[in-house]
Amino acid sequence: MAGGNKQIVLKRQRDGVPAVDDFAVADGAMPQPGPGQLLVRNIYLSLDPFIRKAMRGDHHGYALLNPGDVIYGRNVARVVRSNHPDYAVGDVIVADTGWQQFAAIDGARAGDRIDQTLGPLSTSIGVLGMPGLTAWASVTHLIQPALGSTFVVSAAAGPVGAICGQLAKRAGARAVGIAGSAEKCQLVTRTYGFDACVNYKTNDWEEALKAACPDGIDGYHDNVGGAMLQAVGKQLNHYATVTLCGRPGDYFSSTFTPIQLGAFVGKRAKLKGLVVYDYQQDMPEYLRIAAPLVRDGKLKVKEDHVSGLENAPAHFVRLMKGDNVGKAIVAVGPEKV
Amino acid sequence: MAGGNKQIVLKRQRDGVPAVDDFAVADGAMPQPGPGQLLVRNIYLSLDPFIRKAMRGDHHGYALLNPGDVIYGRNVARVVRSNHPDYAVGDVIVADTGWQQFAAIDGARAGDRIDQTLGPLSTSIGVLGMPGLTAWASVTHLIQPALGSTFVVSAAAGPVGAICGQLAKRAGARAVGIAGSAEKCQLVTRTYGFDACVNYKTNDWEEALKAACPDGIDGYHDNVGGAMLQAVGKQLNHYATVTLCGRPGDYFSSTFTPIQLGAFVGKRAKLKGLVVYDYQQDMPEYLRIAAPLVRDGKLKVKEDHVSGLENAPAHFVRLMKGDNVGKAIVAVGPEKV
Repeated sequence: MAGGNKQIVLKRQRDGVPAVDDFAVADGAMPQPGPGQLLVRNIYLSLDPFIRKAMRGDHHGYALLNPGDVIYGRNVARVVRSNHPDYAVGDVIVADTGWQQFAAIDGARAGDRIDQTLGPLSTSIGVLGMPGLTAWASVTHLIQPALGSTFVVSAAAGPVGAICGQLAKRAGARAVGIAGSAEKCQLVTRTYGFDACVNYKTNDWEEALKAACPDGIDGYHDNVGGAMLQAVGKQLNHYATVTLCGRPGDYFSSTFTPIQLGAFVGKRAKLKGLVVYDYQQDMPEYLRIAAPLVRDGKLKVKEDHVSGLENAPAHFVRLMKGDNVGKAIVAVGPEKV
Repeated sequence: MAGGNKQIVLKRQRDGVPAVDDFAVADGAMPQPGPGQLLVRNIYLSLDPFIRKAMRGDHHGYALLNPGDVIYGRNVARVVRSNHPDYAVGDVIVADTGWQQFAAIDGARAGDRIDQTLGPLSTSIGVLGMPGLTAWASVTHLIQPALGSTFVVSAAAGPVGAICGQLAKRAGARAVGIAGSAEKCQLVTRTYGFDACVNYKTNDWEEALKAACPDGIDGYHDNVGGAMLQAVGKQLNHYATVTLCGRPGDYFSSTFTPIQLGAFVGKRAKLKGLVVYDYQQDMPEYLRIAAPLVRDGKLKVKEDHVSGLENAPAHFVRLMKGDNVGKAIVAVGPEKV
């Protein structure tokens, strides 16, 4: 007799590139918020590669995801009912609400309200959200590109890569992207303003990268891992800094692609692991700097929207295949009540 | 009609652990120093793992080593004749003189004279030489262990590892070694004064390391690479720093053992490649600090001497098998003329 809360649940765990068939639509019970909880309605789902890990039973700091469980994700949601003094009906938050229409979540763990004056709501899971903060941490804390240095980022058309390159360029570096299609490379250079972008799906992409980085590579934000990290490693300058961040290629199976470290030793490179949750306290500082740039069109991330919860699996599969362009978002509820 | 200069030459290049049979004794011509050159007589050969790479045709920054070539190495040698104004007969230097009795080398590339007041001549290729400087660079520049932090080093009974741990301990860290026998572990704790040492040739060594590092690992100087780096990586604390230095396990073949970087990302680790030649300008500073400690018995490296050039191959094979204990040195000529 339940129902009224459409959900996307996991049908089966498996390795490999995910398929639409790994998901199922379910009709869940309308959640009832308990004491201290909020009832929220999702507006925008944020599709992120780390969800792939959870789908095969890897927790990534979250609970394990088993068949029948609602796919989780950090989404933009509006408070519909509040049993917590810090939140009022109508507040918009970014929280772990899962792939469903409604969720009951603890007010104590719901995080900050979105400042709706900063930009469109969807930017809070993109350029003004976790992807932006990831890029900020990498560029300003870990790599700190010097004026005139060469900064390279992989998955450059994606939300983290796009912001990495734009921030590095603002810091006076030459920004070079690596992306997976001619269309993405155009976005990277024409819209994001990188100095160059190399399509790694061409045979001579390593030569093209060399040509795009005539003075070698001083900083590299790695969003990919595996063979790409190895290949870029060969072109590092001595004392280069590398941020190790996402590794979507590794999310398809339970083992990470191994890397030969010899070249990194020879280059005296510094490799730094980045987990964005460490930098949550930097969010106000990041927003102070980034929000005006976004408003003035000086910091951009293309968003790739689809509508309807039932379309989330197909959109996610496109993301994991590298077929989408820009920050993948699913609109599942109205922005205004 | 030549002769008079006994040499050890390469008989054949091959992968795998080297054997005495890969070397041959030769009777070379007595070298004649040209203009600007020095004729030197070797006193102590320094046996170093990097020589293994050269033996299979990998240059390690040197020229390739082909069958028939004299094995090279940076040794302690006395100037016998000088055609260069900066050097006089009787000066002792550390220079690339190879595994032979005599060598003619360019004065311009001969490097600094040894200050014979600092300690026994053999320390200039050990605790007061390149191994010491390597440890100095790792501890004081790259890892910078905090007071009360836990510092781990592999190949801890070897000259670099021994000094790493002793310097880290002087900086207020807890020093834990990893070595390949009970005898080596005794040397590490009793003679070098580490807080603990783990024998990695026991089955439960990872558990033993955990027990020896109850607060986790904050700094790790990796002398080994491959599986050991991977294993220690699992026990790193968040934000740990790792120096990537020697990889003798990788010197046996032309490919480096690959590493899975996932754990290092999760730990937000910093991995830093170290090549000691970058720190040559630090040598006076290092000697200023280390020489009095060596003199007072507060900084120690056991030396493992054999006599006679013809015994160099067997001594080197022992080193590469991990069967020797301490800095491997071959005495090939008199200290005093």
